[in-house]
Amino acid sequence: MSSAAEFESIESILKKLPNEDREKICRVLYGQGTSCISVSEDTIALSEKYGLELISCAFTSREEQLRVPRKIRVGLFQNKLPLDTWSPLKQMREAMFKMAEEALELAYNGGVNVFCFQEAWNMPFAFCTREKSPWCEYAEEAENGASTQFLKQLARKYNMVIISPILERDVEHGDILWNTAVVIDNHGDYLGKHRKNHIPRVGDFNESTYYFEGNTGHPVFKTEFGKIAINICYGRHHPLNWLGFALNGAEIVFNPSATVGALSEPLWGIEARNAAIANSYYTCSINRVGTEVFKNEFTSGNGLPAHKDFGHFYGSSYVTAPDGSRSPGLSRTKNGLLIAELDLNLCRQVKDVWNFQMTQRLELYANLLDEATKLDFKPQIITKST
Amino acid sequence: MSSAAEFESIESILKKLPNEDREKICRVLYGQGTSCISVSEDTIALSEKYGLELISCAFTSREEQLRVPRKIRVGLFQNKLPLDTWSPLKQMREAMFKMAEEALELAYNGGVNVFCFQEAWNMPFAFCTREKSPWCEYAEEAENGASTQFLKQLARKYNMVIISPILERDVEHGDILWNTAVVIDNHGDYLGKHRKNHIPRVGDFNESTYYFEGNTGHPVFKTEFGKIAINICYGRHHPLNWLGFALNGAEIVFNPSATVGALSEPLWGIEARNAAIANSYYTCSINRVGTEVFKNEFTSGNGLPAHKDFGHFYGSSYVTAPDGSRSPGLSRTKNGLLIAELDLNLCRQVKDVWNFQMTQRLELYANLLDEATKLDFKPQIITKST
Repeated sequence: MSSAAEFESIESILKKLPNEDREKICRVLYGQGTSCISVSEDTIALSEKYGLELISCAFTSREEQLRVPRKIRVGLFQNKLPLDTWSPLKQMREAMFKMAEEALELAYNGGVNVFCFQEAWNMPFAFCTREKSPWCEYAEEAENGASTQFLKQLARKYNMVIISPILERDVEHGDILWNTAVVIDNHGDYLGKHRKNHIPRVGDFNESTYYFEGNTGHPVFKTEFGKIAINICYGRHHPLNWLGFALNGAEIVFNPSATVGALSEPLWGIEARNAAIANSYYTCSINRVGTEVFKNEFTSGNGLPAHKDFGHFYGSSYVTAPDGSRSPGLSRTKNGLLIAELDLNLCRQVKDVWNFQMTQRLELYANLLDEATKLDFKPQIITKST
Repeated sequence: MSSAAEFESIESILKKLPNEDREKICRVLYGQGTSCISVSEDTIALSEKYGLELISCAFTSREEQLRVPRKIRVGLFQNKLPLDTWSPLKQMREAMFKMAEEALELAYNGGVNVFCFQEAWNMPFAFCTREKSPWCEYAEEAENGASTQFLKQLARKYNMVIISPILERDVEHGDILWNTAVVIDNHGDYLGKHRKNHIPRVGDFNESTYYFEGNTGHPVFKTEFGKIAINICYGRHHPLNWLGFALNGAEIVFNPSATVGALSEPLWGIEARNAAIANSYYTCSINRVGTEVFKNEFTSGNGLPAHKDFGHFYGSSYVTAPDGSRSPGLSRTKNGLLIAELDLNLCRQVKDVWNFQMTQRLELYANLLDEATKLDFKPQIITKST
């Protein structure tokens, strides 16, 4: 289960194919793909200094006659825990903030406008343990918690929108917890928050013992760099959740996640990409890296002996464009920053070509869902009349 | 644009990788994948005699204590036109029926229980031309048309459910056309039909000039070999369409298609597979093969000169299981039959593990769609209060 035994990435294996074959296979697997964008030598030096893999790429769009291109850069940051899971919370916070500061500095040097962390980025993904202490102490108020205060300064300094997925403490409603993404705008102001809509009950993802399904709907945040939304982790398995953000006008949907290989890896390249295609927006998928080991053992509800690790978080963060083209993935094993340049105009360009919105027959489905949610719903089943 | 210049398949390229690398990459790209199932030498001889590529495989499921396995075999048949597009209709029908008869004989020998043809299987995919003559003459009544009569006998003979996607002539409603899938049960009886729900307006797919959006809802056909449904072609781009069949209880959804490389190939492996994952059922994706050339030239609405061909239908038919595992694809260039053994029990097994149905919050989305279909709908957009 250790990172050492994990392979680097799909892309590193495909490189072993003859060029001609690789081009054929990549056209099918990656669509139009992306082109490399060059970053300064200083930026490369910085990525090396901080030990961060750096991929920078751009998607293709068309020049329009009446709209100027709306090119912006997103930054997807994936990281391991900097310290052992059982480290004191104050030490963990310091180490996390240092790592975040480095990643944001690198992102700034790479021209990033909208930066997103992985799910519950500033804490161990401890929900496997079902222990409440000390993990609940990681929870913070969305608007004024320590990490929001910290990131506001950096957002202002770097003129960058920052999405910060944290464990939220809701002091105004009985001190309960939520799995929440905080959005800070590029002036360092708190813009709002979104709470995870769909909570897993699978494998070691015992999150339903900590927090409930979110009550914030499907908000889209209008920023200077586009209309953005956040579909947190397990919500990526729900096409209706992706649709909700589309109905509210999202141009980019971030999917900060924490998921492990044995459970979800074959689905990872499928779901966010399908969402980008179906909804004609960009999706940005971010996953943790590394193997988190806990002090106390726990079981996984699968008949196997108790153990202390959560399996391998396989990273592989990537971006998909509305035309289905996708970027290369970050490593399966290393901390890294993926910078992608997107022309937001591509969303409408793809809508005009494919017409998925015009042809989607929402009324038909509004009626169907109304029926399907009734207790006496009768499915439309055709059997032979006898 | 000719088949000769087309490569064989993704799988044939991946075979060039060292075994160890191929296993790693296939685990991510194909999930658990499938195992080979052996067919008799007679069956192999038959596939060679008829010039049909034959792939036979089985998905993995778990033994239960209270339910016996419900293993059935599906047959996905992809084919080129046997004659030139401009051949007289009676000749085309004869050639098509001969080809169908061979494919069904092979499927029977391979133990197939439910067989599905590609979209509008018994005619050229002539909707690129926007000509009405002679193409509209291919239309047939669903219940009593020539192809249904023909297939009823074979369904009875082979004890096989047959899904036959055709161009339908609706004589009871003004002689209009529909894009329809006819379902014939294994006793040779007409079970019902489904009309394509979503009609494309993209590239050469000028189908909206021939027929309208279907009015048959999301029927699920209860057969002796499982509850099946049909999502015809462009409907695969619509997650709500896939959901509709799930709400009505489908265990297998067939996606008979006709789609070409330049337009959709990077999406082909994504959408039906995502649908299988999101809805915990099997999906069976079938695409045409070859390049169809027409007598009169037509334009494609893309600024390029008039031409006579529709691009390359890239085949690549495949099956996905509810756990996201997928089968190898049939060739990109050849006629073929893909036989896959499925345990229908896997659908519920996966639901119990992943809980996508329990966590999908249908009420939330019923409300959202009700709102979003109102003319005065206001999207949920969060902007900075100034």
